[in-house]
Amino acid sequence: MRVSQMLIPTLRETPAEAEVVSHQLMVRAGFIRKAAAGVYTFLPLAWRVVRKIEQIVREEMNRMGGQEIMMPIIQPAELWQESGRWDVYGPELFRLKDRHGRDFCLGPTHEEIITDLVRGEVSSYKQLPLLLYQMQNKYRDERRPRFGLMRGREFIMKDLYSFDRDEEGLDVSYKKMYEAYNNIFRRCGLVFRPVEADSGAIGGNDTHEFMVLAESGEATVVYCPAEPCGYAANVERAVSPPELPAVQESPGPLQEVVTPGQKTVEQVTKGLGIGPERIIKTILYQTEKGMAAALVRGDREVNEIKLQKVLDVLRLEIAGPEAVEGLTGAAVGFAGPVGLKDIPIVADQEVEAMSNAVCGANKTGAHLMGVNPGRDFQWQKCADIRLVKRGCACPNCGSPMEEARGIEVGQVFKLGTKYSKVLGADYLDEKGESHPIVMGCYGVGVTRTMAAAIEQNHDKDGILWPVSIAPFHVVVIPVSNKDSRQVETAERIYGELVEAGVEAVIDDRNERPGVKFKDADLVGYPLRITVGKSLAEGKVELRHRRDGEVVMLLETEVVKRVREIISASL
Amino acid sequence: MRVSQMLIPTLRETPAEAEVVSHQLMVRAGFIRKAAAGVYTFLPLAWRVVRKIEQIVREEMNRMGGQEIMMPIIQPAELWQESGRWDVYGPELFRLKDRHGRDFCLGPTHEEIITDLVRGEVSSYKQLPLLLYQMQNKYRDERRPRFGLMRGREFIMKDLYSFDRDEEGLDVSYKKMYEAYNNIFRRCGLVFRPVEADSGAIGGNDTHEFMVLAESGEATVVYCPAEPCGYAANVERAVSPPELPAVQESPGPLQEVVTPGQKTVEQVTKGLGIGPERIIKTILYQTEKGMAAALVRGDREVNEIKLQKVLDVLRLEIAGPEAVEGLTGAAVGFAGPVGLKDIPIVADQEVEAMSNAVCGANKTGAHLMGVNPGRDFQWQKCADIRLVKRGCACPNCGSPMEEARGIEVGQVFKLGTKYSKVLGADYLDEKGESHPIVMGCYGVGVTRTMAAAIEQNHDKDGILWPVSIAPFHVVVIPVSNKDSRQVETAERIYGELVEAGVEAVIDDRNERPGVKFKDADLVGYPLRITVGKSLAEGKVELRHRRDGEVVMLLETEVVKRVREIISASL
Repeated sequence: MRVSQMLIPTLRETPAEAEVVSHQLMVRAGFIRKAAAGVYTFLPLAWRVVRKIEQIVREEMNRMGGQEIMMPIIQPAELWQESGRWDVYGPELFRLKDRHGRDFCLGPTHEEIITDLVRGEVSSYKQLPLLLYQMQNKYRDERRPRFGLMRGREFIMKDLYSFDRDEEGLDVSYKKMYEAYNNIFRRCGLVFRPVEADSGAIGGNDTHEFMVLAESGEATVVYCPAEPCGYAANVERAVSPPELPAVQESPGPLQEVVTPGQKTVEQVTKGLGIGPERIIKTILYQTEKGMAAALVRGDREVNEIKLQKVLDVLRLEIAGPEAVEGLTGAAVGFAGPVGLKDIPIVADQEVEAMSNAVCGANKTGAHLMGVNPGRDFQWQKCADIRLVKRGCACPNCGSPMEEARGIEVGQVFKLGTKYSKVLGADYLDEKGESHPIVMGCYGVGVTRTMAAAIEQNHDKDGILWPVSIAPFHVVVIPVSNKDSRQVETAERIYGELVEAGVEAVIDDRNERPGVKFKDADLVGYPLRITVGKSLAEGKVELRHRRDGEVVMLLETEVVKRVREIISASL
Repeated sequence: MRVSQMLIPTLRETPAEAEVVSHQLMVRAGFIRKAAAGVYTFLPLAWRVVRKIEQIVREEMNRMGGQEIMMPIIQPAELWQESGRWDVYGPELFRLKDRHGRDFCLGPTHEEIITDLVRGEVSSYKQLPLLLYQMQNKYRDERRPRFGLMRGREFIMKDLYSFDRDEEGLDVSYKKMYEAYNNIFRRCGLVFRPVEADSGAIGGNDTHEFMVLAESGEATVVYCPAEPCGYAANVERAVSPPELPAVQESPGPLQEVVTPGQKTVEQVTKGLGIGPERIIKTILYQTEKGMAAALVRGDREVNEIKLQKVLDVLRLEIAGPEAVEGLTGAAVGFAGPVGLKDIPIVADQEVEAMSNAVCGANKTGAHLMGVNPGRDFQWQKCADIRLVKRGCACPNCGSPMEEARGIEVGQVFKLGTKYSKVLGADYLDEKGESHPIVMGCYGVGVTRTMAAAIEQNHDKDGILWPVSIAPFHVVVIPVSNKDSRQVETAERIYGELVEAGVEAVIDDRNERPGVKFKDADLVGYPLRITVGKSLAEGKVELRHRRDGEVVMLLETEVVKRVREIISASL
């Protein structure tokens, strides 16, 4: 392709509304344009990247026996009512009516549609296992769409659904997809990590997220650096063995101490001259079932995802000052479990093991010392409700764990029989007995993967595309459009590259070389061939975008070299 | 692929709701399943066909310099309000609101979105011409979706938009697309014809439709069989020179005759013993501007598309009996232009040239004879408002024309400056002067092309896929699953085919051969290799689906033969 004829509207200025690098660079490099909040047009370069990612995904899905289909984007409400999600899904579901007043939604996911399909077409164990997938626009009416393609309202996903006769079959399908996802993100040239994840609202059992590691990631990953352990989990889900006291102290007397203005753990540790691991932190929450208290050690944070599950509530918010005062009779910062009545108390496992601890006295400006769980207060539940962080012990091998930021680009998920039971997708086994089909679902955010690739691969000048998903592999730049020998040589090299199947463009615009170089860096072609003054010695420049390495090559050899580099990178 | 592992849910019965062959066969052969009225899931075989058609379209668009992009499906109402189409488009436009109450629609077409994009990114003549296209789901909320993929509510289209500096540039882009469309449908293996078409509601000037010829087509095409004339037009648009009387009769006296019960042209010709070409047929219409009368010769029909343009009305319906009686004082069948007052009369060109004609007397049971247009009645407009039919003279060469039925699968369209003017998409020329960009739009119904291919290529047993768009090229069938030599040979041939890049499936199901043969015919694999008893002589059967031709080949030669046949067909 000739840059003079391509729609690559690069910008020198960073668009004001773009908060993250991938959004900024995709707009600046002429990849995307906004059509509405969270809704984008993909320009030619971006669409090439999307199609490359899609093709990698397709090949890996097919390799695992996946069959590609295409389900509708507009889905009838009846199926969502049947599954019970029509009322639950909330305002993120785009809803519409047809001319006859019938309700539809724009699919955010396709469990209902595919389970309906399979209940109609699959009746025998002979038809299982079955892996069906599609790549398609998905819709989520985000309250605040932002970060460009990272959190859009219209985005492209690959979703595969597996159908098996039992849990063992699901395990096999799940492992296939887990392997396929590793292949996909590896082939996309990304540094990533599969991590244990929380199953959230889709429901189900095992689940892993695939995280592209990048500083700008919204998710926190905790992982074990020890080889070959490799434990890694989303912090929402991460576990670590409770730290128990080495020596069990004998219980001392419970006594109240005055702690004026000491509302935080830090203030109390300072004021009383004790370590934070001796403090019982009491956090009061509002839920749809009323208030609840969570107890963790003073040097811990509450993992609200874990707490939510323990409490079995949909809504969990930290209680406001009024509610806290109403319940405890004290200002925020002085709550404690001793004497706390009428609300459920959940104690973390580490709290259960504490002795002679300190906690709020439910009296403003006072704490209790010598608090002994079980003796001085009771709890409804003892559970793991603490947030794992850097330095916590690995649950597998005990090594201290590390933290990283990640962008979730894929998730694999054991659904079990959640949808097949409610929608009646059954099969008959060899004996003619009926069983619900066991399902899994597996998503890759295709457009999000493109954005994550940029978050992970960029520098101050622009994008550093991995070769496998670069919009083009190489740009050829004649330095002077007035030097006919430069132009002819550039054209000849470009022609030979295209002939050899290399994805090449030639920047034949009547622009200064500086403009062409800047645009080439911004767009992020992995290789740049510059045809300039060295042509006098028969040489051209080959530059690697990623490390800036430059080599001078005979113009007759550059095509061969480019082909070698590209084959080696794919 | 192995049929035992594929989702190809064939049915023996024709589904009751499927009215047309393509719908019946796509359901029976396991290609599609309905998710809602006019909304379908594409199963693996159908999706392969769609992707093949898409790839052919893509290659031909790229060859003409088209750049592939992807625009949103959900479009903000603001742009449609700006173009004026938000209020005009009517109930066929799926509309929805986001969580903030903002209006959106699901794109039936993308003139607004792309003109908005181009007005933002194109400012100079240097950036023109520009050809941008996408392949995407489109939405049209049909009042009565039917005929499967022929008239769905969610369907896949390729839409390309051209941007040029002037009409000459548009001519070039239009010709490129015209040529590309010929290439596309030829490569899809279809018998088709580009025809002049009516521009309808999109507005614009020149337009051609590409019609796949098939008895079941909803459109009528009129064409000149003479070589090299090649005139062809949608009957909505077709013209033919008026047939004028050879001799001009001298006007006779106007007289009323009694014609009891003679309401139709046929009855009047019989009753009065005259040819239908002597009758002036008067049709009364209701429009949003009131009633109107159209006059055509007795052996002609009114072309309501032409009439609508002449009257410049949006709504045109034949007037009901009450309105007719209210206006003429006579029952339906006895209206005539003589003495008809207060409504516009449009006379066809052939009517103007008539003399001593017969028409209704505006009195029940009576007609007028000796009617002479101009003398006995006047008209507001004289125009070509007749429907061309088989036998009419070709407007180019005068040969009698033929009729055919067609399915519209593509349309090319000169939009001119309709959208660029209203949305302000301008460019600056060499002198710095501003001009509106001149646009064209060009659509291919991808899923409709699949359906049309079946309408044109099927027999009583199933589909006859053209090789280039067949879901697979060849099916290998071992006759007996218990004969290990048959099974091994079939597997080996299948393996060699796959190895050789042939798109092959093996029907390894534990089914009777008759079931496999029936399914193979239904699905429509162009070639079938049967491994049966002849294997004793080292031979297998190669059968062509289209003509049923069977050849026995050495098992060692069949793969080579299949490769030859496929290369020759692509």
